[in-house]
Amino acid sequence: MDAPVPYGTVAKDVLVLALPRGRILKEVMPLVQRAGITAEPDFDDPKTRKLLFDTNLPAVKIVRVRSFDVATFVAFGAAQLGVAGNDVLMEFDYPEVYAPLDLGIGRCRMSVAEPAAMMAGDDPSRWSHVRVATKYPQITRRHFAARGVQAECIELSGAMELAPNLGLCRRIVDLVETGSTLKANGLVEVEHIADITSRLAVNRAALKTRPDEMGAWIERFLDAIEDAGDADAA
Amino acid sequence: MDAPVPYGTVAKDVLVLALPRGRILKEVMPLVQRAGITAEPDFDDPKTRKLLFDTNLPAVKIVRVRSFDVATFVAFGAAQLGVAGNDVLMEFDYPEVYAPLDLGIGRCRMSVAEPAAMMAGDDPSRWSHVRVATKYPQITRRHFAARGVQAECIELSGAMELAPNLGLCRRIVDLVETGSTLKANGLVEVEHIADITSRLAVNRAALKTRPDEMGAWIERFLDAIEDAGDADAA
Repeated sequence: MDAPVPYGTVAKDVLVLALPRGRILKEVMPLVQRAGITAEPDFDDPKTRKLLFDTNLPAVKIVRVRSFDVATFVAFGAAQLGVAGNDVLMEFDYPEVYAPLDLGIGRCRMSVAEPAAMMAGDDPSRWSHVRVATKYPQITRRHFAARGVQAECIELSGAMELAPNLGLCRRIVDLVETGSTLKANGLVEVEHIADITSRLAVNRAALKTRPDEMGAWIERFLDAIEDAGDADAA
Repeated sequence: MDAPVPYGTVAKDVLVLALPRGRILKEVMPLVQRAGITAEPDFDDPKTRKLLFDTNLPAVKIVRVRSFDVATFVAFGAAQLGVAGNDVLMEFDYPEVYAPLDLGIGRCRMSVAEPAAMMAGDDPSRWSHVRVATKYPQITRRHFAARGVQAECIELSGAMELAPNLGLCRRIVDLVETGSTLKANGLVEVEHIADITSRLAVNRAALKTRPDEMGAWIERFLDAIEDAGDADAA
């Protein structure tokens, strides 16, 4: 184990890149590598309990956190750069986060779903009040409020698709990739809220105080996306 | 894949037991089994995407959800019974959840921690305002408010122990089991907030409408705890 790092020393002169744990990481790492950052070997060790990793660049470290937390790490300047889904950026809507680049990965959509058995005769345009299980209460309230519908949100961090079958509420707002999880739970999409992809998230204060450095990183990620596009086309 | 279940049918006459995913489940299942409930074989398949499981009892089903969501499933009557840590019960503080039994498992504590390097000369009794990274904003605010300290909480769902090293904030409130994670990140406990164990959580409405059935289950879990105590003593 490394020697303990004293309070706050990491953040002063190093660039910290916050990456999301889990499935999306497999899509993120090729881009990060094309941008010139290679993580230390421990990063790929599934058993490591480390959260903070060195890279090939002495001035760059990687933290691996839950996808929902990436925006918070960037907003508070604990990371200067991050990769975060549009869903997370929209939910927190931090003014301190600038998200200039669509990385074109982690594609899915955010939808309202309900039991197929309810669909017959249900007209979303006639709803006046809905109760919704979701991980995204802010997005959900905003989506429904925009057309005058009041949404009562029951916040869950997972397993939303269980909620209708257990009588918790009739509707859910969740990410949908292939739709197979909804189908397996007898649910169908009734409204599309947003298309989701991962974006590069940049701390605005860092952009002001370290403009050349941060600008160069945005350029590098832009090139990395274009390289990925070329590779796909070839 | 099972045929889709129409909206709400599961909840009417079946008893749903909500169990927490993850590490704690290994401690929970022996108790559940001593209470007379055996999950279907799929429950132990690490690759299953199922969330709702049959048991040896036709009238009992198990849902496996995130530990943080168990209290919500029970509070809203999507599950009549659940196993939830005191941390989750305290954080949500749902009036609809009755938690009569300490199951004596999942023992840990909730603490305030800060960098060891800061400890010298730091006196918690002199704090007037603190900024804290935590998964437990309600508990944290209540803990500090009780002695007139205002806590500004930065909500994270994991990796709290990174926050001080990255300059996000100086202090965290988190669960501590052995203390090795804190130590590896150069943090020390400075205040003890609560001792945590898992409890049996019961939906109060179910207790009123199905008193004999729910009362019998509470008895069964009480016996299961006593059996476990006897086994430990033997």
